[in-house]
Amino acid sequence: MKTDIDRLMREADLEALLITGPVAHNPNKAYFTGMVHVTSGYLLKQVGKSPVFFHPSMEREEAARAGLDTKDLSTYRPLELIEASKGDHIQAAVLLLKEIFNEYEISGRVALYGKTELGAGFGIFDRLQDSLDEIELVGEPENGSVLTRARATKDDWEVQRIREMGKVTTEVAGEVADFLTSHQAKDGVLVDREGEIVTIGEVKRRINLWLAMRGAENPEGTIFSIGRDAGVPHSAGQDDQPVELGKTIIFDLFPSEAGGGYFYDFTRTWCLGWAEEEAEALHQDVLEVYHSVFDRLQFDAPCRDIQIMACEQFEAQGHPTVSSSPGTTDGYVHTLGHGIGLAVHEGPAFSHLESNRDILLPGTVFSLEPGLYYPDRGAGVRVEDTVWANPQGEFEVLADYPMDLVLKMPGS
Amino acid sequence: MKTDIDRLMREADLEALLITGPVAHNPNKAYFTGMVHVTSGYLLKQVGKSPVFFHPSMEREEAARAGLDTKDLSTYRPLELIEASKGDHIQAAVLLLKEIFNEYEISGRVALYGKTELGAGFGIFDRLQDSLDEIELVGEPENGSVLTRARATKDDWEVQRIREMGKVTTEVAGEVADFLTSHQAKDGVLVDREGEIVTIGEVKRRINLWLAMRGAENPEGTIFSIGRDAGVPHSAGQDDQPVELGKTIIFDLFPSEAGGGYFYDFTRTWCLGWAEEEAEALHQDVLEVYHSVFDRLQFDAPCRDIQIMACEQFEAQGHPTVSSSPGTTDGYVHTLGHGIGLAVHEGPAFSHLESNRDILLPGTVFSLEPGLYYPDRGAGVRVEDTVWANPQGEFEVLADYPMDLVLKMPGS
Repeated sequence: MKTDIDRLMREADLEALLITGPVAHNPNKAYFTGMVHVTSGYLLKQVGKSPVFFHPSMEREEAARAGLDTKDLSTYRPLELIEASKGDHIQAAVLLLKEIFNEYEISGRVALYGKTELGAGFGIFDRLQDSLDEIELVGEPENGSVLTRARATKDDWEVQRIREMGKVTTEVAGEVADFLTSHQAKDGVLVDREGEIVTIGEVKRRINLWLAMRGAENPEGTIFSIGRDAGVPHSAGQDDQPVELGKTIIFDLFPSEAGGGYFYDFTRTWCLGWAEEEAEALHQDVLEVYHSVFDRLQFDAPCRDIQIMACEQFEAQGHPTVSSSPGTTDGYVHTLGHGIGLAVHEGPAFSHLESNRDILLPGTVFSLEPGLYYPDRGAGVRVEDTVWANPQGEFEVLADYPMDLVLKMPGS
Repeated sequence: MKTDIDRLMREADLEALLITGPVAHNPNKAYFTGMVHVTSGYLLKQVGKSPVFFHPSMEREEAARAGLDTKDLSTYRPLELIEASKGDHIQAAVLLLKEIFNEYEISGRVALYGKTELGAGFGIFDRLQDSLDEIELVGEPENGSVLTRARATKDDWEVQRIREMGKVTTEVAGEVADFLTSHQAKDGVLVDREGEIVTIGEVKRRINLWLAMRGAENPEGTIFSIGRDAGVPHSAGQDDQPVELGKTIIFDLFPSEAGGGYFYDFTRTWCLGWAEEEAEALHQDVLEVYHSVFDRLQFDAPCRDIQIMACEQFEAQGHPTVSSSPGTTDGYVHTLGHGIGLAVHEGPAFSHLESNRDILLPGTVFSLEPGLYYPDRGAGVRVEDTVWANPQGEFEVLADYPMDLVLKMPGS
């Protein structure tokens, strides 16, 4: 939570955080500013002090809406710096940042943040470091950074927004189910009233429409993959392919608030009309692990223990896992979940690695997503909900939706 | 264009380009891979050789769709590297990249690219540089990098996709105009049939809906700002505000293909029902500069000359400009345009700075967007089209739309 930042900065011996880049689709910046239309600039957070939002002059009114201390970058005469640097934009940025560091009397360790073009970022901060005596620029790993750790536990107002996206997500999942089951089948694939094949691309176009109607967006796309494709966890599904009956469909929906705000993450596996025995069995196994792990979730437990628990159960069912067969593409091939917030994947991590020290702290919002994959048998199954470790000491799914495998078709 | 990359690499004395990060919303990576669902990894382009796409194992089938040489990152045993590094993800990434550099016998200068979290990026490449003897990692400035320069001129298939987005954009602009003019006014603001105020937020929600219906998305948001807000070029407009008649509305729409593909950029200024004389005069001045500059565009001319031309004309009309009054917030306060492609703002640049050496090359797709801003008088005017310097030696607006200022309201 935001109130943890100063403590985490002190623990990491950081004097300041410097965040570059736009606000949109830049979680670490948006975490401080909220969703305002500011396309470049910096945010400086010194330990024990309020953050300062440095913004382009043209975006001064948008920046003011963030409710932070603001500073107009034109104060630093950026165009003159570019001319003085003979068009070397990297040198101009270095000079500007040195002026800011001087003005705010920064010394010690400064951590860098911001989703930005690496070339310019490396160019600027590599050269800036060379020209600084009393400052050490720090590139923290994403998994252990101060802001990753602060963001991993959510304030109530953040959970409220994620919950709202959960409502949108499950409503749209319902629309998709209604859309699919309102069609006829012909030669084993969905067709519309004119007998034209309904493609995966058409389903995805409607998903974006139903999301937009509810004020959401879909910046990372949707996974809607069928049969063999469903057997490869991150295959997104091919737009020109038909929607086949009786095959497993992995439908993974992870939209966000418009403008790049909070995400929700949700997956169901469906078979239209009917399911093969094997798919039924895989689905049963996945649900069993989901419920069993859910019931055994514990506050302040190591996240890796939860993944190990899932692996053990899948292995007991007879499936290979990432733990028993590293590198396997059959069986349980990924981690059990991940944190969710301003990024669809954020801390904590649930890998089984010994080096994973993440803890399931109160306030964590995370996905729980066991899955089984057998690409050569043309099948994949995953179910996923977004869960909150709430202040009452409970684990709460933020949006309910049925887990049935088979969606009945008319006449079936 | 892509065919320029090897020549530009040789000119910049670069042996290789290394691009990090996901494909979505990462223009330099998407430029090579197209829109496939691959969320991390690397792309390595050596001079004179085909690019190689390094992808996570789970995303192997999506990566294959890029049609490039691919390499599964599991080959490098990334989890073992993390364990061997005792959970230091930066060290693990350094080891993995060193292995790739060895395997592909990379030496010399390697330029870094990719929209990615700066902290991890700086941490990895700063440490990687320290451990390399025969490689110099290069952070090029965004404005002058090899890929910025290659991307600034478009292949015909890219123009076709931008043109398609132009069609979507102008269709949606028409929907917005129809929506606004189909309402009644009450006390000077738009109301619906129940007499409820129509807010800017409601207009923007519908814009996203109409875009989604056409398979587009709006990752950077929309500017729909009225009156005083319109006088501040990048104010996006406030969701809870009503739509007022008789005030200038700056409507700047810049959607992209779904999944983070090609953008279009378009602006019109509208007054609902009627316009004040001053707004009419400002609009006339802006149109005059638009047409006069358009008629004088020249192939292979310095882009800064075009901005200087615009400044001179605005000054002749009596307006302050960024050239005559640096730092002004009244008058003509920005540059005349920018390149458009996989990013809404890309090369070439049109600033008047002496250090701006960008040239209007054949194949460039760029915005032409003169504007005048007087926030204290509650007015701002901008018109913008996306223009292609086509192979026939002509400057071609990629989507036509009327430039009328006043949208007639029913009964007016």
